[in-house]
Amino acid sequence: MEFTVNQLARMLDGKIEGNGSEKIQLLKKIQEATKGSITFLSNPKYEKYIYTSDASAILVDQEFEPKQTLKTTLIRVNDPYLSFTILLEEYHRLLNFQKTGVESPSFIGENTTTGDDLYRGAFSYIGDDVQIGNNVKIYPHTYIGDQVKIGDNTILYSGVRIYSKCIIGLNCILQAGAVVGSDGFGYAPQKDGSYKTIPQLGNVVIGDFVHLGANTTIDCATLEGDSTVVGEGTKLDNLVQLGHNVSIGKHTVIASQAGISGSTNIGDYCIIGGQAGFAGHLVIHNHTGVGAQAGVTKNTKKEGEKLLGSFAIDIRGYINSYAVFKKLPELNKRLKELEEKIVNLPIV
Amino acid sequence: MEFTVNQLARMLDGKIEGNGSEKIQLLKKIQEATKGSITFLSNPKYEKYIYTSDASAILVDQEFEPKQTLKTTLIRVNDPYLSFTILLEEYHRLLNFQKTGVESPSFIGENTTTGDDLYRGAFSYIGDDVQIGNNVKIYPHTYIGDQVKIGDNTILYSGVRIYSKCIIGLNCILQAGAVVGSDGFGYAPQKDGSYKTIPQLGNVVIGDFVHLGANTTIDCATLEGDSTVVGEGTKLDNLVQLGHNVSIGKHTVIASQAGISGSTNIGDYCIIGGQAGFAGHLVIHNHTGVGAQAGVTKNTKKEGEKLLGSFAIDIRGYINSYAVFKKLPELNKRLKELEEKIVNLPIV
Amino acid sequence: MEFTVNQLARMLDGKIEGNGSEKIQLLKKIQEATKGSITFLSNPKYEKYIYTSDASAILVDQEFEPKQTLKTTLIRVNDPYLSFTILLEEYHRLLNFQKTGVESPSFIGENTTTGDDLYRGAFSYIGDDVQIGNNVKIYPHTYIGDQVKIGDNTILYSGVRIYSKCIIGLNCILQAGAVVGSDGFGYAPQKDGSYKTIPQLGNVVIGDFVHLGANTTIDCATLEGDSTVVGEGTKLDNLVQLGHNVSIGKHTVIASQAGISGSTNIGDYCIIGGQAGFAGHLVIHNHTGVGAQAGVTKNTKKEGEKLLGSFAIDIRGYINSYAVFKKLPELNKRLKELEEKIVNLPIV
Repeated sequence: MEFTVNQLARMLDGKIEGNGSEKIQLLKKIQEATKGSITFLSNPKYEKYIYTSDASAILVDQEFEPKQTLKTTLIRVNDPYLSFTILLEEYHRLLNFQKTGVESPSFIGENTTTGDDLYRGAFSYIGDDVQIGNNVKIYPHTYIGDQVKIGDNTILYSGVRIYSKCIIGLNCILQAGAVVGSDGFGYAPQKDGSYKTIPQLGNVVIGDFVHLGANTTIDCATLEGDSTVVGEGTKLDNLVQLGHNVSIGKHTVIASQAGISGSTNIGDYCIIGGQAGFAGHLVIHNHTGVGAQAGVTKNTKKEGEKLLGSFAIDIRGYINSYAVFKKLPELNKRLKELEEKIVNLPIV
Repeated sequence: MEFTVNQLARMLDGKIEGNGSEKIQLLKKIQEATKGSITFLSNPKYEKYIYTSDASAILVDQEFEPKQTLKTTLIRVNDPYLSFTILLEEYHRLLNFQKTGVESPSFIGENTTTGDDLYRGAFSYIGDDVQIGNNVKIYPHTYIGDQVKIGDNTILYSGVRIYSKCIIGLNCILQAGAVVGSDGFGYAPQKDGSYKTIPQLGNVVIGDFVHLGANTTIDCATLEGDSTVVGEGTKLDNLVQLGHNVSIGKHTVIASQAGISGSTNIGDYCIIGGQAGFAGHLVIHNHTGVGAQAGVTKNTKKEGEKLLGSFAIDIRGYINSYAVFKKLPELNKRLKELEEKIVNLPIV
Repeated sequence: MEFTVNQLARMLDGKIEGNGSEKIQLLKKIQEATKGSITFLSNPKYEKYIYTSDASAILVDQEFEPKQTLKTTLIRVNDPYLSFTILLEEYHRLLNFQKTGVESPSFIGENTTTGDDLYRGAFSYIGDDVQIGNNVKIYPHTYIGDQVKIGDNTILYSGVRIYSKCIIGLNCILQAGAVVGSDGFGYAPQKDGSYKTIPQLGNVVIGDFVHLGANTTIDCATLEGDSTVVGEGTKLDNLVQLGHNVSIGKHTVIASQAGISGSTNIGDYCIIGGQAGFAGHLVIHNHTGVGAQAGVTKNTKKEGEKLLGSFAIDIRGYINSYAVFKKLPELNKRLKELEEKIVNLPIV
């Protein structure tokens, strides 16, 4: 894709100083920007790069005053970093929304409605009574059960599976193999040690701007009318697991292979590391940070806690304890020496 | 779905006290039961709810004597909890066995036989010499390799993959994306540090009433004639991994993201927590409990052990050690103080 | 499959002592070899089995001198273990390359080329501008995006998903549900706590003789022209995760459910245990060993380190510390006793 500086400046409500007809194909960091790239200057410590940069355009703020002559075109905006990420996201969207049309064979059920600019790949399956918004991209081998709703501008990559009655918001991206709405792990133990299955009747509700990673799995809620919920803007990496009735807030990120047990409620703006695990029925406040491989077994007490370890405790506490853990054999030896010294004290 | 109290009482061999023509649509806990629901009273501490409940019917045992007047219909049975879970499971089955017929296009190989009340979704693939029982539900995009056998009343959700020669029992449920029979991780190391592939020739045998979670993976056994085995009634959650030649007993539950390395043998009635891992070639007794994120590296010595930690040890031992772990920096400080005191003892 | 001893000896450049027309169907360990099997003697401690073995043929080295009479045929080779693994791999290949032809319906895009002896299963999808080598086996429900390249003799099992522009080498095996080239987990945090998506424009390059396990996921690199890389001969087990811009060297094995965060670089000949995790941007030397469930947070300093624990440290150090960890409550008690003794010292 190619744009002119004029087109980009208009998109960002920016003011051009230099050549507006310059052609832009790439978005790059300021250290790496080459001819044909646009970049940005936000952190003053990178200012030195602006004077030698081959970039075809650089986003700068309204106050920036060059200390040397520049060979590049400037676009003045209020917040260069924000403007750059807007371009990134726009580029991302343009790349991903090129496909349209219906490939054959594909399957579509009864009473199902689809919007404009649909892509429906070969071997995709859409059940009955499904509502699909505008500009939705359904890649080959995607399965969409009955009564599902999918919002505008959402992309379902190859092999995504959405069980009946689940709801997916606007502008979502589900990577290949993600499963939404599988039966929760609910069983009633019997006296003889066997289990009877508790029917899983609820659904999953995915908010707007949510991303689900490849082969990630999200179980439906147990009761009819209840939902497992992923809040607006939340991003789940590959191979993440959410149990039934889990609720994740807004703008939370969960790294790969983390698992959240049933009915746990995670707040907004949390950051969860890879391979972290959560017990069931927990309440985790907003802005909680959880380290990789942590095992969280208790509710947080307030916003902004940072947890580490399995069982997870405060991150500083864990790091300090672990530092001593590494010296435990030495500690043990020192203790033994002390014990011997005491025993050998002539006075005792 | 809707039933009368009469129909349910007949199913459970129960005796009605009240209105047998009352209509039931829902199964609920006694605290939450509304009109149209059936619930149960098993634990006496919930008896208070029975007097105010709006439930349309309540399962009680033969001895129950109401202390106040009741506005609800009773069904007397021998074991109210058991009867309730029978209804739950029946409801679950009714919900899940509605689909029948063959959607088009779908693929079926040669010498393959299917039973009554089959559902064969669009884009499902069934190879040659496959035997499929009665009332089997094969969702879209399911792959069934050659010579597979699938028992009656089994459900394969969208995108399940079953490699050649595997055997699936009666009344099983495989959630979307589950893989059964992939090649085990077996390599013969060479002198130059590279690996040659050991052919994986065995199969997987899944017992009756087994559930496999979404995107769970089970490798086939290495040798021809050998099987990786999952015993009757065992339930595996999402993203669980079983290596080649693993054997899991009956009525064992394994939570999400747990992994069992090759040739490990887990007994009956075990409960394995999420993200737990097992080394290879272990023997784990019946009724073993393993905590979430535990790493089991040794055989158990007897039935009923409870293990925790990575490397897993007895759960009480781990908890006690971890309690001190959290105080290690303080412990270290106390030890240092003691050492100084001893040095400063005038007498030494 | 059946071979004569003559055929096998010719394949291995071996010399027969005995009956070259003996029929062989199976490859077995020397303790388990039955009539119709071929086995090998490499480690002298297994020599006793050779005198009682019912094997139809045994690979031995050039120097082997039987101490008793043998009822089996010998094939003399330079390295019996190597020769046996060559037979294993050959057997593996013969088994897996039987399928050829195109099943219907399947989808193939424009400007796509395929080689000889292709198998293209029903419901497989191949995009535009794809190059597929000779003897490639594409199972049902496999998805191959635009501009992908796949080398000769590679097998893609059912439900493999390969995103656009990825490159797969010669002689690779991708188990069911493996995902190659999903978007990396890259987001630009905004002042309001939300995230903008960083477009993921690179690809994945998989070397020759690589195996990927079932439901394993590999993200593409972030920048156009960059690649996430898996080196020649490397084997990844089921449910492994590689983040964007990860690079794995040659002949490294990674066990099930391990996860490697973005931009980490793992060397050649490493052995990574199951459920191990790596932080991002690390450099791990060749021949590193990492225990199961380890959490690696730092670069290695040299080749051949053995790491364990979360956070991972030297394996001996971890084992020694963990041995004391298990006795921490006792240690704590001993420390308390010492403190009391000191306090009670009459002299202090």
